[in-house]
Amino acid sequence: MVGNAIASKLVALGHEVMMGSRTTNNAKATAWAQTTGGRGSAGTFPDAAVFGEIVFNCTEGASSLAALRAAGAANLEGKIVVDVANVLTPDGPGPESLGEQIQKAFPNAKVVKALNTMNCEIMVNPRSLPDAHTVFLSGNDAGAKQIVRELVETFGWTDAIDLGDIATARATEGYLPLWLSVWKRLGTPAFNIKVVR
Amino acid sequence: MVGNAIASKLVALGHEVMMGSRTTNNAKATAWAQTTGGRGSAGTFPDAAVFGEIVFNCTEGASSLAALRAAGAANLEGKIVVDVANVLTPDGPGPESLGEQIQKAFPNAKVVKALNTMNCEIMVNPRSLPDAHTVFLSGNDAGAKQIVRELVETFGWTDAIDLGDIATARATEGYLPLWLSVWKRLGTPAFNIKVVR
Repeated sequence: MVGNAIASKLVALGHEVMMGSRTTNNAKATAWAQTTGGRGSAGTFPDAAVFGEIVFNCTEGASSLAALRAAGAANLEGKIVVDVANVLTPDGPGPESLGEQIQKAFPNAKVVKALNTMNCEIMVNPRSLPDAHTVFLSGNDAGAKQIVRELVETFGWTDAIDLGDIATARATEGYLPLWLSVWKRLGTPAFNIKVVR
Repeated sequence: MVGNAIASKLVALGHEVMMGSRTTNNAKATAWAQTTGGRGSAGTFPDAAVFGEIVFNCTEGASSLAALRAAGAANLEGKIVVDVANVLTPDGPGPESLGEQIQKAFPNAKVVKALNTMNCEIMVNPRSLPDAHTVFLSGNDAGAKQIVRELVETFGWTDAIDLGDIATARATEGYLPLWLSVWKRLGTPAFNIKVVR
């Protein structure tokens, strides 16, 4: 769902996107590719990692490390990996965030934690809400964060806060229980937080 | 600092407030009382618990249970206990929040977790920020939450979201690492989040 939302937005913005999955003929990925007017394609995780200049990790948090290992460390070398995943436990992440674990497992990738604090519809259509709101960036590579910032600005984001290095991913991953509680209370995931300052 | 901010605001709004501490002659509490034109006083934790209709826990989170035990379970019986404390570890609370622990330790108190997601200056002067923003309430007693909601509205709050029972305190306590990261990034605690929906 998250991968579909981001891939579709990227295609709509004119990018070429390969949707990676465990097999070459994943039904959802293939069906998605057919809707993209030729700019989208489907492949394996390694295929997608080789293809992309920027790799989005949109897998479920508990499976993300396995999926990225399947993609292949060599294929991710030097690339920007935008980690939008959360480990969906009610208590949030442990002392080390998923973003940090990915950066540690793939030291030659440029991991940027981003877009992990809102529903995927809001990720790609931030202006669907009635007021501006905030997206957070965490990562060790300033250049990679700048590229991701500019990319999400093309999605419609106007308030990106760079929290610092990848260790700050634990801050945004730790927000997950509050996000879930607000979702439950509002009865809709169509919300996000704005840092008023 | 937090107790001083809240007590001063309450006194300014016309309430009578006793500042509790471990001893009867705490220098800061006594000095504070002298600034209140007679509406503020100082006493021990049990004195304050007996005195108040509403008890604010403004102690450091790691010491809160001890402070409330010193105040005395019998003195808190049937009273609203507004827990504004956080356990200041970088990784946020464990699987059980402080709010839940307090409610479990004092089952006959009406614990309301509130105001624990912003700096104490923002707690009592929410309109010091340039836009409206959000305060969260968690607690098992709907009547107690309503009273706390109305009280914080007299502080200037306009967007209080009732997240549900006291178990939802783990959501707001889990926000602490993000709050600390944003503070560090902005260089000031003069911010809060607004739930844009």
